[in-house]
Amino acid sequence: MLLVGDDPALLAAALEEGLGADLCVISGGLGPTHDDRTVELLARATGRRLVVDAALEGEIEQVARDVAARLERPYADFEPGVRKQASLPEGAQSLGLAGTAPAVLLEHERGVAVALPGPPGELRRLWPAALASEEMRKVLERAPAPAHRILRFFGPSESAVARALDEAGGERDGLAVTVCAANLEIQVDLYWSAKSAGEGAAVAGALRDRFGDELFAEDERGVADLVVEACRGRGYTLATAESCTGGLVATRLTAVPGSSEIFLGAIVAYADEVKRGQLGVPGEMLERHGAVSAEAARAMAAGARAALKADVAVAVTGIAGPGGGSEAKPVGLVHVVATSPEAEIERELRLPGDREEVRARATAVSLHALRGVLTQTGTHSRAVSS
Amino acid sequence: MLLVGDDPALLAAALEEGLGADLCVISGGLGPTHDDRTVELLARATGRRLVVDAALEGEIEQVARDVAARLERPYADFEPGVRKQASLPEGAQSLGLAGTAPAVLLEHERGVAVALPGPPGELRRLWPAALASEEMRKVLERAPAPAHRILRFFGPSESAVARALDEAGGERDGLAVTVCAANLEIQVDLYWSAKSAGEGAAVAGALRDRFGDELFAEDERGVADLVVEACRGRGYTLATAESCTGGLVATRLTAVPGSSEIFLGAIVAYADEVKRGQLGVPGEMLERHGAVSAEAARAMAAGARAALKADVAVAVTGIAGPGGGSEAKPVGLVHVVATSPEAEIERELRLPGDREEVRARATAVSLHALRGVLTQTGTHSRAVSS
Repeated sequence: MLLVGDDPALLAAALEEGLGADLCVISGGLGPTHDDRTVELLARATGRRLVVDAALEGEIEQVARDVAARLERPYADFEPGVRKQASLPEGAQSLGLAGTAPAVLLEHERGVAVALPGPPGELRRLWPAALASEEMRKVLERAPAPAHRILRFFGPSESAVARALDEAGGERDGLAVTVCAANLEIQVDLYWSAKSAGEGAAVAGALRDRFGDELFAEDERGVADLVVEACRGRGYTLATAESCTGGLVATRLTAVPGSSEIFLGAIVAYADEVKRGQLGVPGEMLERHGAVSAEAARAMAAGARAALKADVAVAVTGIAGPGGGSEAKPVGLVHVVATSPEAEIERELRLPGDREEVRARATAVSLHALRGVLTQTGTHSRAVSS
Repeated sequence: MLLVGDDPALLAAALEEGLGADLCVISGGLGPTHDDRTVELLARATGRRLVVDAALEGEIEQVARDVAARLERPYADFEPGVRKQASLPEGAQSLGLAGTAPAVLLEHERGVAVALPGPPGELRRLWPAALASEEMRKVLERAPAPAHRILRFFGPSESAVARALDEAGGERDGLAVTVCAANLEIQVDLYWSAKSAGEGAAVAGALRDRFGDELFAEDERGVADLVVEACRGRGYTLATAESCTGGLVATRLTAVPGSSEIFLGAIVAYADEVKRGQLGVPGEMLERHGAVSAEAARAMAAGARAALKADVAVAVTGIAGPGGGSEAKPVGLVHVVATSPEAEIERELRLPGDREEVRARATAVSLHALRGVLTQTGTHSRAVSS
């Protein structure tokens, strides 16, 4: 993959390289401003004229007029951009609009080029239209996909997974393995060709045997999706009480479509006064043990369940840094308590990293603790881990 | 910029290209697993042997032993990874560790190569060590940086900014301009060489004249930073009441270091019962106007101020989709109310995009509304905008 800025010469060179492939997917540079150069350079690189597509121009004009009306701006502001965005290389087709920007597909002498918008949401929305095109279908038919198996673990270190992989024989001809660690999760992707199916399955089996307790998914679904699904399956409602994560656990849970069926709400209790007032954490407890303590986390979880009338809750309190740490309670110290009608999980963590990393990791631990109390029964687990 | 996967042949080709430059910065591939190949391939591409750095090995071993102890795993799991990670190309130096992975600097025949970790937080942490090295200093001295001016707007469309830029003469020799739109914000970056200083300043001035009211920053600080700073400057405390954003506004605010000085907390009121119980929104109002209404947003903002005893609050309620929309209240309809002792801003929005985009845009509007009430005095603004 090539990532280039708006410099026309660098863009042209990158396009020249990409257009040599059977399929060249481009993203970004479709906007109305002068530095959005993808379509113009695509025309030049394929030796085609830029022509205004009248039907497309009408379509874009309508979107632009709506935006102009909403913003109470003259349409004249938009007119040059509309004409620019309706200009396609001869022979290209629009795959649909993102705002005023058309995604573009062009079958040229050397292959197929697809230009999609840069913003991830818009790219995701228009990608299916590209996949559905006859031109792309023909290209994809020529490249059979290898078998793909995903194993995702929460708990083991990357080194332990690497060692187990080696012991199982590791990568070899016909079997590619990648290991990716992020947010305390380890994802192993195995790709194998038909003739190596046995070896691929054997390596996957060895990893499952070794880390079975820590295997939490065999697909791409995030842990927040799994939590929402488990709540729905059990008919439970869910709430969070957050201090150092500042609402990030709730943000992750509510990113899941349909989470409103089970998620009631969250109390982000940054100030001690909010821990007392909204979550009923006794002031005397905060004074004795501090806001970053197992006691406070337990009281916050109980308080969230009581105040929001939720079946399941997680509480997280800690020191995200850069300030606020001490020798006894350093930056990275985090307490998590998850509780359901059947189970309770407590974690005391000493997380490495800067503020953003501590928050992201504390959120990952919180979500996995929720998954834990929702998939276990009758468990009361107290653990000090990292 | 080249982005490549773990395939050794593609990595080697990318390195070959990158090492032709005076400075080649590499990120990722420093981990303990077999698919972390950066250092090995860097040695090969520069014709150097890989040698174990004994001092570095001791340093990494200590980190690995700590991790092993915390995870209650045998150190043997880590040993092969430690040896691998302590192996550097002859003549290279470690710039410091991220976990067990050293960042590596190597001055070779054609220039300087720096290999940094892939995880963004770790990269950020080790980058200053690279910058501080004598080798990089020498390279950077040879390339004088152009003057750089940033203008950031909230409100105008990308097309309007493009038109104003054109009218001001636009890009030319010695003056590069990029326009980037994200989350309803437009960032214009102007770079000029010494001989074009007058023209650069003139274009910047033209944009300021045209969109002065919508200019909110002339540096890279995010709107959440500006809100936290404005609260601190006025001695105000802050709270949020969130429905469709699910805690994202609080997450953005608490991402700012030191936000705990002014941020009290948030009530994420996803369920109507929580809007009633925690924010005091009258049930009768919810029945008459619905939870997605200006009335509900106003009551939520007032409720957050009262319940959390905050000086300033923002409330956001809307329909993020994909479900939950109707003809009268479609997906993307969002109400935002920000309120301070001096000012109040209300927004009714019809935001385009999928669930993630609607949430991100509603969050941007909420943060800018907070900025608005903190920088205005005596303003009561009601606006329908998008």
